[in-house]
Amino acid sequence: MSAQSTAGQVIRCKAAVAWEAGKPLVIEEVEVAPPQAMEVRLKILFTSLCHTDVYFWEAKGQTPLFPRIFGHEAGGIVDSVGEGVTHLKPGDHVLPVFTGECGNCRHCKSKESNMCDLLRINTDRGVMLSDGKTRFSINGKPIYHFVGTSTFSEYTVAHVGSVAKINPAAPLDKVCILSCGISTGLGATLNVAKPTKGSTVAIFGLGAVGLAAAEGARIAGASRIIGVDLNPNRFEEAKKFGCTEFVNPKDHNKPVQEVLAEMTDGGVDRSVECTGNINTMISAFECVHDGWGVAVLVGVPNRDDAFKTRPVNFLNERTLKGTFFGNYKPRSDLPSVVEKYMNKELELEKFITHQVAFRDINKAFDYMLAGEGIRCIIRMDA
Amino acid sequence: MSAQSTAGQVIRCKAAVAWEAGKPLVIEEVEVAPPQAMEVRLKILFTSLCHTDVYFWEAKGQTPLFPRIFGHEAGGIVDSVGEGVTHLKPGDHVLPVFTGECGNCRHCKSKESNMCDLLRINTDRGVMLSDGKTRFSINGKPIYHFVGTSTFSEYTVAHVGSVAKINPAAPLDKVCILSCGISTGLGATLNVAKPTKGSTVAIFGLGAVGLAAAEGARIAGASRIIGVDLNPNRFEEAKKFGCTEFVNPKDHNKPVQEVLAEMTDGGVDRSVECTGNINTMISAFECVHDGWGVAVLVGVPNRDDAFKTRPVNFLNERTLKGTFFGNYKPRSDLPSVVEKYMNKELELEKFITHQVAFRDINKAFDYMLAGEGIRCIIRMDA
Ligand SMILES: NC(=O)c1ccc[n+]([C@@H]2O[C@H](COP(=O)([O-])OP(=O)(O)OC[C@H]3O[C@@H](n4cnc5c(N)ncnc54)[C@H](O)[C@@H]3O)[C@@H](O)[C@H]2O)c1
Ligand SMILES: NC(=O)c1ccc[n+]([C@@H]2O[C@H](COP(=O)([O-])OP(=O)(O)OC[C@H]3O[C@@H](n4cnc5c(N)ncnc54)[C@H](O)[C@@H]3O)[C@@H](O)[C@H]2O)c1
Ligand SMILES: [Zn+2]
Ligand SMILES: [Zn+2]
Ligand SMILES: [Zn+2]
Ligand SMILES: [Zn+2]
Repeated sequence: MSAQSTAGQVIRCKAAVAWEAGKPLVIEEVEVAPPQAMEVRLKILFTSLCHTDVYFWEAKGQTPLFPRIFGHEAGGIVDSVGEGVTHLKPGDHVLPVFTGECGNCRHCKSKESNMCDLLRINTDRGVMLSDGKTRFSINGKPIYHFVGTSTFSEYTVAHVGSVAKINPAAPLDKVCILSCGISTGLGATLNVAKPTKGSTVAIFGLGAVGLAAAEGARIAGASRIIGVDLNPNRFEEAKKFGCTEFVNPKDHNKPVQEVLAEMTDGGVDRSVECTGNINTMISAFECVHDGWGVAVLVGVPNRDDAFKTRPVNFLNERTLKGTFFGNYKPRSDLPSVVEKYMNKELELEKFITHQVAFRDINKAFDYMLAGEGIRCIIRMDA
Repeated sequence: MSAQSTAGQVIRCKAAVAWEAGKPLVIEEVEVAPPQAMEVRLKILFTSLCHTDVYFWEAKGQTPLFPRIFGHEAGGIVDSVGEGVTHLKPGDHVLPVFTGECGNCRHCKSKESNMCDLLRINTDRGVMLSDGKTRFSINGKPIYHFVGTSTFSEYTVAHVGSVAKINPAAPLDKVCILSCGISTGLGATLNVAKPTKGSTVAIFGLGAVGLAAAEGARIAGASRIIGVDLNPNRFEEAKKFGCTEFVNPKDHNKPVQEVLAEMTDGGVDRSVECTGNINTMISAFECVHDGWGVAVLVGVPNRDDAFKTRPVNFLNERTLKGTFFGNYKPRSDLPSVVEKYMNKELELEKFITHQVAFRDINKAFDYMLAGEGIRCIIRMDA
């Protein structure tokens, strides 16, 4: 359909609907309502699968919200825009993002924060902000949204503050992975840990996020990038992301922070934690050098975990920071990450290990559940 | 004595000797040996008393080392220099410092650290580094040094790396207090917390260190400086140091971090912890705003204390750092702090609440033990 023909009209298209927790998605014909004020409707061309989709699809430990359309890493084109939308127009190439940037709150106005008060991620909400309703339905039955993106659909509706306009020359089947995990790891290193050229960086957890953090250290010119993982299968892959050395905590009978201190004459300059394990967080902090070391937490822990350390570890001039989405402001900063890929500073191809047609979307879940590969691209047109 | 007459010779002078833990100091005639290689002998003109002197004099919880000459905040003049000393000469005005700057180690070469490997504070050592001997004696009996400074003596010997050369026009009876606590608090704010103009800063603990941290916030142009102390007597004094509001945790039946969050629409921009109480450290961290808040730990906790918080407090983009001596490198940075006083940016007079003659040094201990005042200057010539 052309932009003219769809504006203001309901679109019927295919979407992968999760009817129940943990059950395979079903490709259904859904109705996608037109965008309301400050919303845009997007045609999704490519989407990829992230652990967070799987986590909420499994719905262990949260209130289940079904039927729902998951998906939050994607690239697409603006189909039509709602009232009051001025900086996006039909045809623009965009990345939808699970967290937004309203531009007006204290966070959006701060140079440091990307935790927008209005559009900060909310995994419990399955409806649009403006009217508390869904834009998806099947025969009048509402289908819930997921983190404001719901990209496992040929068309979706998002708040304008959650949509980053990018260079139209960028291949959407590559840059779509910048919507979440890859930018999270990359930004954790480049924006928060900020290693200097020649420094030593430890990366805890070599999943998609950790490998992106390693890629950030490579781009920053770190001379030693030490990957730490319990799974030795990750090490071969991690070399492509700049990792120069590997430590498996299972191979040692002392805490991994001590192993790293011995390898590095007292500690690493920077560390980035990408597992979410509470003890790994503590190790990631305690392994940085006194005087100048900075540790950055990315992994999401269990609700009841407590971070615990002796305060002298801080007093000896160590810094501990956490980050959310790599401290990138979705609309302001993602276009420049896309440019880093365009000018060949950032390599994205190596993150993409699988590709499936939309009708085979459940295979992407299978790969992730089996721990195979890093990112699986789902082609909406196939 | 003139510089010529003393070089290479033993000096007999008065010193306040601590013979036993917790017993009044005794003014004795001591012999001060000439400085060895890379050492300087200083004539101390003014010294002041800091909690750390009292703490090690009381010798609760540490191995006692007596007889000992305490004192580590002071101003003086170089008397003579040992072999290899090139950047100090007799007559230079100096501040001795309890921690040093060798100039050659990884810390000294790092732009960020001041935790010199060679000359980092060592409270257990009572002798000089070069030969493991003392430079003080009474009738041949060695008297131990304290943190490389031992300024409760008319003459003392220090490693050249622990002596900052300052502007000779600076009044030593004022700038002597920059040797320890005041610089510690000031630097914690100016060098580590770095509040921006117009921001909101919370200071936990309004002793000498906390008031200096508040003075740093005032200099940085903070618009709200919230003092937190259990002792309401501190509040009136603290107004002189820029504090605009006060919170006594005892006046509230909820955690002080919640009180501060309510006062500041979600949290302060910066906090500086100057009590050493472990729960106050946790409050100081948890009271900073998500997205951009930075908390700085200065207070020295008990050895077995554990800092404990939910990791989500970090993931929401808060930063926690510790500092040692306000991150000032003694030799490189103290001269510029003295200049801040000389150009009237920094006010020092308000820290000086008492003055005593050297022969009355035990009165300075009495004032401190009674919690009276901030700094007591001890005049060596009186
Ligand atoms: N903060 C954010 O904005 C953000 C965004 C996306 C993901 N995340 C989080 O980042 C983390 C990593 O995500 P991912 O997709 O890369 O996960 P992943 O499961 O693909 O990778 C995790 C890796 O950590 C390793 N690991 C697990 N426990 C370990 C331990 N104790 N010691 C060493 N290695 C260990 C695993 O073997 C695996 O290789 C998750 O906690 C995720 O929730 C955060
Ligand atoms: N890191 C360094 O380089 C360095 C250097 C010097 C001093 N210090 C440390 O800084 C701290 C402060 O030193 P000082 O000389 O100012 O001490 P101080 O005893 O003069 O002042 C401490 C203040 O904190 C208040 N206080 C105590 N417990 C409190 C609590 N739970 N809540 C709120 N207020 C509380 C007290 O009433 C007092 O006013 C000490 O721990 C000291 O060891 C650190
Ligand atoms: Zn906002
Ligand atoms: Zn994700
Ligand atoms: Zn050094
Ligand atoms: Zn002191």
